[in-house]
Amino acid sequence: MARSRRKRIIINKDAGLPPGELVHVGEKKTPQAAMALIRYSEGSFLEQKITELPDLPPATKGCEISWIDITGLHDTDLLARVGEKYGIHPLVLEDICNTGQRAKVEDYGEYQYIVVKMVSWDEKSQEINVEQVSLVLFENALLSFQERPGDLFGSVRQRLQVGKGRIRKQGADYLTYSLLDAIVDGYFLLIEKIGDQVEVIETRLLTHPGVGTVEKIHELKHEMIFLRKAAWPLREVISSLERDERFMEGGTAVYMRDLYDHVIQVIDGVETIRDLLAGMLDIYLSSVSNRMNEIMKVLTIIATIFMPLTFLAGVYGMNFRYMPELGWKWSYPVVLLIMLGVAKWMVDFFRRKKWI
Amino acid sequence: MARSRRKRIIINKDAGLPPGELVHVGEKKTPQAAMALIRYSEGSFLEQKITELPDLPPATKGCEISWIDITGLHDTDLLARVGEKYGIHPLVLEDICNTGQRAKVEDYGEYQYIVVKMVSWDEKSQEINVEQVSLVLFENALLSFQERPGDLFGSVRQRLQVGKGRIRKQGADYLTYSLLDAIVDGYFLLIEKIGDQVEVIETRLLTHPGVGTVEKIHELKHEMIFLRKAAWPLREVISSLERDERFMEGGTAVYMRDLYDHVIQVIDGVETIRDLLAGMLDIYLSSVSNRMNEIMKVLTIIATIFMPLTFLAGVYGMNFRYMPELGWKWSYPVVLLIMLGVAKWMVDFFRRKKWI
Amino acid sequence: MARSRRKRIIINKDAGLPPGELVHVGEKKTPQAAMALIRYSEGSFLEQKITELPDLPPATKGCEISWIDITGLHDTDLLARVGEKYGIHPLVLEDICNTGQRAKVEDYGEYQYIVVKMVSWDEKSQEINVEQVSLVLFENALLSFQERPGDLFGSVRQRLQVGKGRIRKQGADYLTYSLLDAIVDGYFLLIEKIGDQVEVIETRLLTHPGVGTVEKIHELKHEMIFLRKAAWPLREVISSLERDERFMEGGTAVYMRDLYDHVIQVIDGVETIRDLLAGMLDIYLSSVSNRMNEIMKVLTIIATIFMPLTFLAGVYGMNFRYMPELGWKWSYPVVLLIMLGVAKWMVDFFRRKKWI
Amino acid sequence: MARSRRKRIIINKDAGLPPGELVHVGEKKTPQAAMALIRYSEGSFLEQKITELPDLPPATKGCEISWIDITGLHDTDLLARVGEKYGIHPLVLEDICNTGQRAKVEDYGEYQYIVVKMVSWDEKSQEINVEQVSLVLFENALLSFQERPGDLFGSVRQRLQVGKGRIRKQGADYLTYSLLDAIVDGYFLLIEKIGDQVEVIETRLLTHPGVGTVEKIHELKHEMIFLRKAAWPLREVISSLERDERFMEGGTAVYMRDLYDHVIQVIDGVETIRDLLAGMLDIYLSSVSNRMNEIMKVLTIIATIFMPLTFLAGVYGMNFRYMPELGWKWSYPVVLLIMLGVAKWMVDFFRRKKWI
Amino acid sequence: MARSRRKRIIINKDAGLPPGELVHVGEKKTPQAAMALIRYSEGSFLEQKITELPDLPPATKGCEISWIDITGLHDTDLLARVGEKYGIHPLVLEDICNTGQRAKVEDYGEYQYIVVKMVSWDEKSQEINVEQVSLVLFENALLSFQERPGDLFGSVRQRLQVGKGRIRKQGADYLTYSLLDAIVDGYFLLIEKIGDQVEVIETRLLTHPGVGTVEKIHELKHEMIFLRKAAWPLREVISSLERDERFMEGGTAVYMRDLYDHVIQVIDGVETIRDLLAGMLDIYLSSVSNRMNEIMKVLTIIATIFMPLTFLAGVYGMNFRYMPELGWKWSYPVVLLIMLGVAKWMVDFFRRKKWI
Repeated sequence: MARSRRKRIIINKDAGLPPGELVHVGEKKTPQAAMALIRYSEGSFLEQKITELPDLPPATKGCEISWIDITGLHDTDLLARVGEKYGIHPLVLEDICNTGQRAKVEDYGEYQYIVVKMVSWDEKSQEINVEQVSLVLFENALLSFQERPGDLFGSVRQRLQVGKGRIRKQGADYLTYSLLDAIVDGYFLLIEKIGDQVEVIETRLLTHPGVGTVEKIHELKHEMIFLRKAAWPLREVISSLERDERFMEGGTAVYMRDLYDHVIQVIDGVETIRDLLAGMLDIYLSSVSNRMNEIMKVLTIIATIFMPLTFLAGVYGMNFRYMPELGWKWSYPVVLLIMLGVAKWMVDFFRRKKWI
Repeated sequence: MARSRRKRIIINKDAGLPPGELVHVGEKKTPQAAMALIRYSEGSFLEQKITELPDLPPATKGCEISWIDITGLHDTDLLARVGEKYGIHPLVLEDICNTGQRAKVEDYGEYQYIVVKMVSWDEKSQEINVEQVSLVLFENALLSFQERPGDLFGSVRQRLQVGKGRIRKQGADYLTYSLLDAIVDGYFLLIEKIGDQVEVIETRLLTHPGVGTVEKIHELKHEMIFLRKAAWPLREVISSLERDERFMEGGTAVYMRDLYDHVIQVIDGVETIRDLLAGMLDIYLSSVSNRMNEIMKVLTIIATIFMPLTFLAGVYGMNFRYMPELGWKWSYPVVLLIMLGVAKWMVDFFRRKKWI
Repeated sequence: MARSRRKRIIINKDAGLPPGELVHVGEKKTPQAAMALIRYSEGSFLEQKITELPDLPPATKGCEISWIDITGLHDTDLLARVGEKYGIHPLVLEDICNTGQRAKVEDYGEYQYIVVKMVSWDEKSQEINVEQVSLVLFENALLSFQERPGDLFGSVRQRLQVGKGRIRKQGADYLTYSLLDAIVDGYFLLIEKIGDQVEVIETRLLTHPGVGTVEKIHELKHEMIFLRKAAWPLREVISSLERDERFMEGGTAVYMRDLYDHVIQVIDGVETIRDLLAGMLDIYLSSVSNRMNEIMKVLTIIATIFMPLTFLAGVYGMNFRYMPELGWKWSYPVVLLIMLGVAKWMVDFFRRKKWI
Repeated sequence: MARSRRKRIIINKDAGLPPGELVHVGEKKTPQAAMALIRYSEGSFLEQKITELPDLPPATKGCEISWIDITGLHDTDLLARVGEKYGIHPLVLEDICNTGQRAKVEDYGEYQYIVVKMVSWDEKSQEINVEQVSLVLFENALLSFQERPGDLFGSVRQRLQVGKGRIRKQGADYLTYSLLDAIVDGYFLLIEKIGDQVEVIETRLLTHPGVGTVEKIHELKHEMIFLRKAAWPLREVISSLERDERFMEGGTAVYMRDLYDHVIQVIDGVETIRDLLAGMLDIYLSSVSNRMNEIMKVLTIIATIFMPLTFLAGVYGMNFRYMPELGWKWSYPVVLLIMLGVAKWMVDFFRRKKWI
Repeated sequence: MARSRRKRIIINKDAGLPPGELVHVGEKKTPQAAMALIRYSEGSFLEQKITELPDLPPATKGCEISWIDITGLHDTDLLARVGEKYGIHPLVLEDICNTGQRAKVEDYGEYQYIVVKMVSWDEKSQEINVEQVSLVLFENALLSFQERPGDLFGSVRQRLQVGKGRIRKQGADYLTYSLLDAIVDGYFLLIEKIGDQVEVIETRLLTHPGVGTVEKIHELKHEMIFLRKAAWPLREVISSLERDERFMEGGTAVYMRDLYDHVIQVIDGVETIRDLLAGMLDIYLSSVSNRMNEIMKVLTIIATIFMPLTFLAGVYGMNFRYMPELGWKWSYPVVLLIMLGVAKWMVDFFRRKKWI
């Protein structure tokens, strides 16, 4: 766990390089970079793998919409050539390569550069999977850059193919919305996943709490800190896209507003889980001090009852020659009765104090 | 409890669907969807159950005000047809169906879409009952969508029928205000209910505190977190309705401002209860450590008094042949006196320390 | 205490009534509602008790200023008639009756509605006394509504009578200022009172702390939460009155600015006391754990010294037939010396550890 | 300490008086009020004590700058006459007298009223010395009001006399700046002083912590709360003076901006010390619980080793007639060996647990 | 550590001096002040050491860009002469000398004054190295003032020399950007360094926690407080440079926006580390109380088992003459069996309580 958490602190490893130089920062998550081209209009749909750059369509071309999906960011050479073809600013390319970006939108006149974090739950490693997705939105084309071949965009591709709903009738702005919507849905699924874990911990807290539980709570807390840092700038991104009048048509703006509501709900969910976790720590600590009290009570009761009795037995174990009681006939039963009395008095005392 | 709390974290389960598709998200709270139509003007009042869509009046029609109240959100087919008839945007319909919305107002030109949370205390399950209410406000008509047949709107219906007060003389904006007012009143009643519970816990905290009390405090804390999340956006909703000059007439705006004050009072009440609960946790923790101190004092006093005495008795219980004291005549009473002295000195020591 | 604290949570009990209906919400603090009329100009002064409504002067009348002071809010019938006479909006009347208002100013064109909380320290019940004061400011008249006959306004009445200072030369706006000034002074006196109590608790905390002290600290904390909630909106009230150019003349605005500074000082005082109280809780908790340490040290020292010695004595109290030491001549003194040595070594150990 | 701290809570004792009445609120810090007049231009310098009011120069007079420094605020009669001569508003005079002001600037058209807190460390009483300084800035004159004859303004007076630097060439605005600069420097010196104390406490915390240390930390915390409350409004004062275009010439505005930076640095310093103090409390608490752990370990080790041994010795101290072991030859050494074994096993157990 | 931490509190030691007087405040970090001049255009590059002031080029001169790098701030005489030559305001010179500045930009018409903090990790002293860097940006010239000869600017110098990339083609604004970029990169490296330390502490916390760990955590916390205070104003500096249209050309503004993102990432990293550290303290405290519980359990188990047994043995060690059990044949084994039974019952009790 520690490994992956630290990874998230060190956010920018190309320190020291001249600006605008393309260096891939982050894990290499796919062996081979790949390009896929989808071209569609209301009536047509075409999907093909691209290997040669010249096959790429120009950014503004007739009424068809082009979606170029590039997977794998370590092939900086490919990125540089794509960037050159579409006239993308070197700084944008640098940001695409460097997976330590904060979600943001930047307006470069001819195109908009959008970068967000895509999250999902990795069942295998039991931790959050984060991927950086960059979108470059031209008027009639959209370039998307992912770290690894993702299935999150699969549903969008399918809807395009089937031509169901509004998606084929709309422009590149609606496609952008659809991709962002898929990404935000990923946040929802993740929060649900973590909500399940919170419930498990809550039950464990009541049955057998321990340091392990506290560590688990803190782990989730860190996940939520991280998720919150990913979701908050996302909110600003969607909000500024909604207000963007140049790239977003009126119809799409309504959808963006809806998406904005979803992001707010994600943030609300994150905050709720954080509140729950904070409360669980309090419960844990108060249950720990209660158990301590319980333990101390047992010790005190036993010690308080037996110490005086042991002392009494010790007194009559002394070997003085002149101890008149030792010779009396009823001494032994009387002492036993006294002991019983002391014990009873002590027990009563604890009863009065409500310790028993 | 845990079940219902989790339910509130996972707020949006239709993740993965194309936008604008109608899916009911949330519990199915009523077996059968129903529609009721109320038409009124200053002089007339008509209430009827509607089963056929064509019976529905158009949104703008003469001087009469129409209020169409739809109960049960799982009949998505019905909703879709109603939406079509009144020209409601698919996204609005989707939001109406999905009960994970945050309170908001959205202006769609011809109509305003208002969604808020209605709360009440469920005596049976001893938890907060939440229902999503959507209002679609046209110039002369109001559509309201509830999850289950509610009695909260009963008082408004009755006032309409009786024709008492201003309600029949005013437009659909005043009707909207009346419904929102009824909803905000529900918040007041809920806070009063929880205030009672806080008082009960406060008393229990002083008489017999325990982990159960802490858990109850945390439960209420979560309720307040939840209530706060419902009330804060409500504030924005009322505030933006108050400033809306198109749908709200001057006269109604004054009432909206009054309602706004009420929402502020609700939020104040929530914050006060939260402060009280936070203080109660502090009192609990300090009382726990005080009891611990009390327990430790008893143990220490007993141990400190009897350990030296037992040692002394042990010394004269040794079996050495040459122990001159054993043979002396007054040894035994002298040793007893010494023991008494030691005990007295110890007790004095604790008195000086103010432990007894 | 709990009773009165809860009273402050439940802020609005007329939930469920139609808006604009007059219902007195709050305690009935005076048996009989009363009206007093003061009419003054630079040269004249007239004070009289009013019992009949027709005796009331109209709101705008010549150059004389009228101040109508109504005491007791449960006579809703009287309020309704006064409201009708002066053309006061039903919602304002409802707010006047309902003592759960937050301080606010509302501009109704012809008049301004101001509602604030008046606080004082009730020596008898040892708690804060809160009263709601409503002011309705016309151009040449001021209506004031109090819950009970108060002496806070006595000084203003006296200054009006004597005609000393600027008060008789100024308009109704200056009268409003004078009343608000008297109310803010009440806050100062209350903070001084609570400051005294804080000092008492601070001393008690150092001499004999206990759970009672913690409860007292929390009680004061709640008082401060309450006071803060009363003072913050007061700030906005004064601030918006200061900027009001229609009702406030230039000369009075300067006085309002001064009053605003006073409110800021009240809030500062409240915050300072809150900081002091928070610090006192920390001191309490650390002193509790210090005492615990002290107790544990005593126990540990005693146990650690006497347990080995008792064991040693126990060894030579065994009844084995073949224990050569028992028969030796110097065994007893040697064992005693060994015991002394062990005890000394232990004491030294604790000295080194700085426990003694 | 408590005394002076309380003094700072009760900020306004003239509650109940009519506004504009001059009453000195605060300690009387100098026996005799005094007036000093300094008149200077680029070429001339004149310093004289003033006893008669007619000797005071008018506020606007030729090219010479007049600085009238009044020390001692209890002579309200003198203040009233000075106020009358210079046409100062009664509320300003009231604020000058009442030493419970918050730092502020008020624009009265002809003059600006500036009030700030001057702080210094009083070596004798080991607490912060606070004095209220009021400045009334006319175009060519500055009136300053102090509580006691201060040496903080001495350096400014000296620079004026020597005529070194820009000070004699500039107007009354630059003089105002110089005085405020001297006051802000006082804050720096105070923070340095407190920084020294923090360092002392930090060392003490590591060598011999105790409740005294906690109290000292809290005392400093209160000093910082107080200092912060004095410095924050100072920031606004300087900021609004910097933006004032009527009284501040362009050249002086640059100096004001510099002064503003200094105030920001003061606030930064205060916040840093607060952070340090908060961290020290945490260290204290964790060191206390560590020591507790240490103590409990010693007790547990001793008890756990000797209790079983003492029990064993007790068993063979029983007086049953038929205990075969008692008669065996090697019983005693065998039992001793068993005891040794048990002790060793226990010690090993604690070693494994890393307690020893 | 304490030394260097205090150094950061006392931020301004020239208190008491007249404004505009040049006094070096801070450590003297280099023995000898030095000046280096770099002049470049797209085609030319010249680097030389300057010893005489007349060798310095004027601020605006043709198409070549001049970068004058001055190292060592204690030679106030040199600074004064440089200031005079370039017409730098005395207050700017004072700020350059005084190393207690907060990062800021100030516009002086002809030039912009930028001051920031440069940070790096000093391996030798194991603490953060802070240096103040001042930049004075003219249209065609840049003056930079450092405390010590730094290698952070080396990479920029090298890029200028090589002429690679855009740097030689751009103006002094791009040079400013390059230097600031190098400084921000220093923050990244520092955060990475501290991230490593956090990881080390996290591991240590789980294996062998102690007070030392807590102190280390607090030390890092202070470092982060400090870093945060350095980074936040840096953000405003970059942001206002980005918006500056006079000095920044359009092309450079894009780079500044990129730099701004980097600073945001630095702040994010700082906040993440702070969150991690806060969580680690919680883990530490809960692990301490868990260990305490563990210790107390051992003590209680041992005491509770052996105290009753020892008492029993004590009873039969009494020397009464008439104790019938003593003479019975099976007494001894029966008592031993009873003891065994008691012990077993106790162990079962603890098992049921889940203590064992």
